[in-house]
Amino acid sequence: VNELRLALDYGGTKHTAALLRPGERTWAAHARVYSPQGADAIYDQVTMLRMARGLLAQVPGKLAAIGVSFGGPVDAARGLVRLSHHIPGWEEIPLADRLRAELGAPAAVDNDANVAALGEWRFGAGQGCESLLYVTISTGIGGGWVLGGRIWGGADGMAGEIGHMAVRPGGAACDCGRRGCLEAEACGRAIARAARMKLETGSWTARAAEEGAASDLLTLVNGNPDAITAQHVAQAAEAGDALAVAVLEEAARMLGAGLGCAISLMNPERVVLGGGVTKAGERWWRVVRDTARNHVLPQARVEILPAALGDDAPLWGAAALAESLIRES
Amino acid sequence: VNELRLALDYGGTKHTAALLRPGERTWAAHARVYSPQGADAIYDQVTMLRMARGLLAQVPGKLAAIGVSFGGPVDAARGLVRLSHHIPGWEEIPLADRLRAELGAPAAVDNDANVAALGEWRFGAGQGCESLLYVTISTGIGGGWVLGGRIWGGADGMAGEIGHMAVRPGGAACDCGRRGCLEAEACGRAIARAARMKLETGSWTARAAEEGAASDLLTLVNGNPDAITAQHVAQAAEAGDALAVAVLEEAARMLGAGLGCAISLMNPERVVLGGGVTKAGERWWRVVRDTARNHVLPQARVEILPAALGDDAPLWGAAALAESLIRES
Repeated sequence: VNELRLALDYGGTKHTAALLRPGERTWAAHARVYSPQGADAIYDQVTMLRMARGLLAQVPGKLAAIGVSFGGPVDAARGLVRLSHHIPGWEEIPLADRLRAELGAPAAVDNDANVAALGEWRFGAGQGCESLLYVTISTGIGGGWVLGGRIWGGADGMAGEIGHMAVRPGGAACDCGRRGCLEAEACGRAIARAARMKLETGSWTARAAEEGAASDLLTLVNGNPDAITAQHVAQAAEAGDALAVAVLEEAARMLGAGLGCAISLMNPERVVLGGGVTKAGERWWRVVRDTARNHVLPQARVEILPAALGDDAPLWGAAALAESLIRES
Repeated sequence: VNELRLALDYGGTKHTAALLRPGERTWAAHARVYSPQGADAIYDQVTMLRMARGLLAQVPGKLAAIGVSFGGPVDAARGLVRLSHHIPGWEEIPLADRLRAELGAPAAVDNDANVAALGEWRFGAGQGCESLLYVTISTGIGGGWVLGGRIWGGADGMAGEIGHMAVRPGGAACDCGRRGCLEAEACGRAIARAARMKLETGSWTARAAEEGAASDLLTLVNGNPDAITAQHVAQAAEAGDALAVAVLEEAARMLGAGLGCAISLMNPERVVLGGGVTKAGERWWRVVRDTARNHVLPQARVEILPAALGDDAPLWGAAALAESLIRES
């Protein structure tokens, strides 16, 4: 029989379900819904079950296992969602047990960063690795470890929190209440904020005026610094804008330093970077890699690669999680 | 029959061999020699074999496995010593194979920090843990990971190099050629150096003179700053000397920050600290723990405990390494 793997990705704004046949690398069936205003945990669960049943009705075979990526803290050992930072009602929900009861197959649940790491390891840029650190750099910074073919979640499911590792004593204020966290220094919002601050202090603007050239960055946002995003900074840096280059390189240096710490500690075979900021261009990648290399003893490898699966990493990871349930049963 | 485990510890200045019977917690036999001036790899190997054979002649039973701690970089997968930083002739020596050929039992070799971590996990302060970071803070700083009951050595055997993790951008010069490594900020030599520098800049001495009290630290070394060790600093700090307190607390903060990074990344169940500097008193421990806690998200535990096995951790770890060979065979 066809032993189907069901992959579920509960995101902050959308939910995706997909079915995979053993040995295949394309989805047998795939469905996605965007969350409406006012969605809650009940809505999420009902929607996802309806999608899952719809897919199962389309594809012949028997459901063998369910893998779940959840966008929030999870007790993976118990298959329990602790809460969602976006959607009410997700407090202490035994999601794995409910899915097993509803769909009749074992389920494994983990948080999106860990599951994305597993996805890149099994189907993406980490294939064939013994050990992998996956880091996503977008509006925030998250990470996950795969060690010996399994997610390493740590004693409290908090492993991989590289975004809240301190990289600059007394640095930028972080949402977590502390200063100098990697996220506060190197994520997309941090890049945009640093550019705005530099423009607002005026020194760059004055120098640019002297040199007879306004910052490209301001032109991109029609003179409104509040509209600046990390993408604008990357675009202006690409065009050679000095302020944008300085901001982007500083963020890349901070990330490189953080990755250097991770490599010194764990010596992973590969580091895979995903998320929007990784589209910031060759300059950003060069500074990240050079800085990481300079922070690590020469005997340890520094292999830093772009993620291959993009936004689909958690969904592919969920399929890999389902596979590992089958392998272990 | 008595399935004996042979534990061998090749240290920089001494070699130790010991036999353990299954299930026991005291050595069935134990021997140690100090290395003479001019010792080389041949001397080390001959000496260790002679000790091992002597022990085996004393204790009835069959040798089941050999575990080895080596004070230098090792290719654990191949049982190969890469080199010794102290003793010539250790370049690319297949130590595990030689021991097996000479003594007729399988052997596993790893570096002393990794093996000490395993020792603390199996017989010391890490008993019952799923995951453990062991850090030794003495003249230098080294570390090792035990994850799921096994040493995590990383892709190049370089995991656990927490001593060369950057904790202070542009900080103190490290032996490795970089700046701000944890070792350069927090090891015993770093503490002694920081105290000497503060005394030599004179500001402290002048202030102390104003207050009518010389630094206790200078008294301890008969006025000779070059004689200061970390132990003197700890002793003076205990007595309330302000300079010594400042130096010791700064080193403890740096270590706490480094441990915080490690905990954010891996969320180990326990962190165990060994080495001479851990005898620096309650103040040092308090600052290390408080700083680490402040560097980690509240959901992750911060359990930092003193090592239980002292200098014997590598030898006990070697016994544990032998045990794991038996378990896996």
